[in-house]
Amino acid sequence: MTLAEALRTLLTVPEQVSINETVLEHHSKDVTSYHPGVTPDVVVFPSSTEDVCRVMQYADTHAIPVVPFGIGSSVEGQVVPVRGGISMDFTQMNKVLEVRPEDFLVRVQPGVTRLQLNQHLKEYGLFFPVDPGADATLGGMAATNASGTTAVRYGTMRDNVLGLTVVTADGSVITTGGQAAKSSAGYNLTGLFVGSEGTLGTFTELTLRVYGIPEYTLAARAVFPDVGSASQAAMGMMMCGIALDRVELVDERTVNVVNNFKDTSFTEAPTLFLEFSGNKAAVDNIFLLAQEILTEEGCIELEFDADQAARTRMWTARHDAAFAFSASQPGKKLMTTDVCVPLSALPDAIIEARRAIDDNGLDGAILGHVGDGNYHAVMVVDPENAEDMRRASHVNAEIVRFALERGGTCTGEHGIGLGKAKYLPEEHGAGAVKMMQQIKRVFDPKDILNPGKIFL
Amino acid sequence: MTLAEALRTLLTVPEQVSINETVLEHHSKDVTSYHPGVTPDVVVFPSSTEDVCRVMQYADTHAIPVVPFGIGSSVEGQVVPVRGGISMDFTQMNKVLEVRPEDFLVRVQPGVTRLQLNQHLKEYGLFFPVDPGADATLGGMAATNASGTTAVRYGTMRDNVLGLTVVTADGSVITTGGQAAKSSAGYNLTGLFVGSEGTLGTFTELTLRVYGIPEYTLAARAVFPDVGSASQAAMGMMMCGIALDRVELVDERTVNVVNNFKDTSFTEAPTLFLEFSGNKAAVDNIFLLAQEILTEEGCIELEFDADQAARTRMWTARHDAAFAFSASQPGKKLMTTDVCVPLSALPDAIIEARRAIDDNGLDGAILGHVGDGNYHAVMVVDPENAEDMRRASHVNAEIVRFALERGGTCTGEHGIGLGKAKYLPEEHGAGAVKMMQQIKRVFDPKDILNPGKIFL
Repeated sequence: MTLAEALRTLLTVPEQVSINETVLEHHSKDVTSYHPGVTPDVVVFPSSTEDVCRVMQYADTHAIPVVPFGIGSSVEGQVVPVRGGISMDFTQMNKVLEVRPEDFLVRVQPGVTRLQLNQHLKEYGLFFPVDPGADATLGGMAATNASGTTAVRYGTMRDNVLGLTVVTADGSVITTGGQAAKSSAGYNLTGLFVGSEGTLGTFTELTLRVYGIPEYTLAARAVFPDVGSASQAAMGMMMCGIALDRVELVDERTVNVVNNFKDTSFTEAPTLFLEFSGNKAAVDNIFLLAQEILTEEGCIELEFDADQAARTRMWTARHDAAFAFSASQPGKKLMTTDVCVPLSALPDAIIEARRAIDDNGLDGAILGHVGDGNYHAVMVVDPENAEDMRRASHVNAEIVRFALERGGTCTGEHGIGLGKAKYLPEEHGAGAVKMMQQIKRVFDPKDILNPGKIFL
Repeated sequence: MTLAEALRTLLTVPEQVSINETVLEHHSKDVTSYHPGVTPDVVVFPSSTEDVCRVMQYADTHAIPVVPFGIGSSVEGQVVPVRGGISMDFTQMNKVLEVRPEDFLVRVQPGVTRLQLNQHLKEYGLFFPVDPGADATLGGMAATNASGTTAVRYGTMRDNVLGLTVVTADGSVITTGGQAAKSSAGYNLTGLFVGSEGTLGTFTELTLRVYGIPEYTLAARAVFPDVGSASQAAMGMMMCGIALDRVELVDERTVNVVNNFKDTSFTEAPTLFLEFSGNKAAVDNIFLLAQEILTEEGCIELEFDADQAARTRMWTARHDAAFAFSASQPGKKLMTTDVCVPLSALPDAIIEARRAIDDNGLDGAILGHVGDGNYHAVMVVDPENAEDMRRASHVNAEIVRFALERGGTCTGEHGIGLGKAKYLPEEHGAGAVKMMQQIKRVFDPKDILNPGKIFL
């Protein structure tokens, strides 16, 4: 009996197991990243926790690797089945199980995407705030501790996952966390699983914190003469305790690429994209204060609007940046850096990243979640071109080194996967990494849970 | 050579090791809780990470238990050296090492108390928000994942510890986390150590998130005819997205005890204590909205003021509640429940707790962090009186059962220690507890780090 045949005996319908070439290929790699693909031996589509348990029990018995897959929007090769085995696709486990408006929580299956959840939550006047850009699955977002533009206000996935149902390496089920807003009951397993990238267990249910949709949202676009003054303005607003929902920095070259790609005419200079929300009068009042600070720091152009269409148009240069870069050179892939530095180091970090990109003759966008010191250099590369790859990897390494020397991290939100494994010991030291590996061995003694990731 | 003599050879001055009766007694138990004390064999006062390493290496070699001690404000027996050994007092490691205003972070030694830190931060216009009531050490607060009245706005210790220096069971040093606002780099060791109650490692340095002192703070006291309407008002404000810094519920009996103790004349009815902060105009505006909701839910008396003295006076009945109960019956001790339930279950939970206290013929205060579903029934008990203890334990168990049946936790902020160990498997299930124990074994193979805590 082949692996596929064996797995079919464990699941309800034959379509839950696929060895179709196109399906295998689709599950071989991240959608946009430069990491080379490796096809899995088989793809399974569980429809319940019980399905996942049966597959894991089989995998445990036969020591077969299992790699969870959502929509493939990971960027550090997290979904690549580097040792073959089973790619476990969660798109059929895509039900919102429960909405509890008065408790500000929902229970979802891991294949629910964030936009799907927000569509579902609308009628309750609620929303889930974590926004990494892509319409990723919530299981995948939890696996990499995703965050994005709203982290400055709402935190990361780790801050918003209250509890998990986890299928362990041997196919048993545990639950972590709960439905209370906080707990001091024993070790924080939830926070350990979040960000573990499929290497400690497989999530089959998530309890998430949700929030009331703000009555009023104001967006703004503020143009600055240079990256330094833009960063200073962002920091100034935060020092004054101004509640920002989003505060994004996009550099000159990025606006230029978006203008070319979208035929827009945004001023080609460093730009802050801002969002404020809450009670209308309070927001208007806060925005007056924000305006003062923006002007003080040298803002040369300010646009703001509360209208939904205007807000969307205004944010175009931020939202479409990565896509514009990718589309501007068809067939190429993206290498995206993801360091996060202490706020005070951000202006220099961005200037230094731009220099490194230019010095190495590459083309790249720089986008920053200025509120939490996390920024991306998005470089367009041809994975087949060794020189291209060498240069981009060199820039990546320089950017990481700059961040680590200042107490920062090699990855603010994308995770370690394959691409950052070499930096983990440098960031945390051998002792801490050894502890992580000991935890891995306890949770996954046969090394079948997304093997080859996080650790070199 | 005695243990004390041996330890003196490892440290700089003889005073760093004590076997003085009074000192041993002081380190035998929590200051106010009902848990019986056990004297340590010796108390050490490290003054550096190196001191801690040397003591831990010795303890590891000789398999001697080590129990960290701050100011002894734990309430579940966390500091009780149930198997004797070394009580490690961190009060000499009380330096604020670095303040980085632009990065919103500080580095401190574990013996720094929260009020000491806030005094130090004042000149920078910053503050550390986590406020468990007692002037606890930050190391101790991290160890139990403390939170308190401000958690509704600023989260718990786990949300505010960015990184740790940890001395492991074998006396080596690891660092976790970093200075960036967020990270997805490997397993979340920081979040695992926070709340581990000294059972996985000993903290010798903490990097904490700090915040700008709000320009303006408004406090309010709102009296309601019953607990249900008070809770509804709190929930209503949260559903409207009103940013509350604190929202505390105190029940009728509690106000009565405070009135007797402090000779005040607050209306003896369920009362919400509120705090709002930020830009003055925005806060005033938000408070208008809050007032509407309070009135709609039946508030029968509302007092509010921004003046510091008035705020302090207004909050008396909340701040002095536990102390008033304790002082009202000298010589007795406190048993404090600490469940946290989903918000919608809170009104019933509080009504049920009051019934359980009354039915069992006990006297107790009920105080609630209504914003996050965490409330305390503070019962005055005589630990020498078996019947008293039996009744209080019974009430505690009933309150925990009610919470667990509704997806809540047996401890929102006090931790497991000795008092809640029996509830851990009930809350998390055998599978999850087994994983916690496996982690414990990896980090502490000889079971010398605060042994006998968390797990039965």
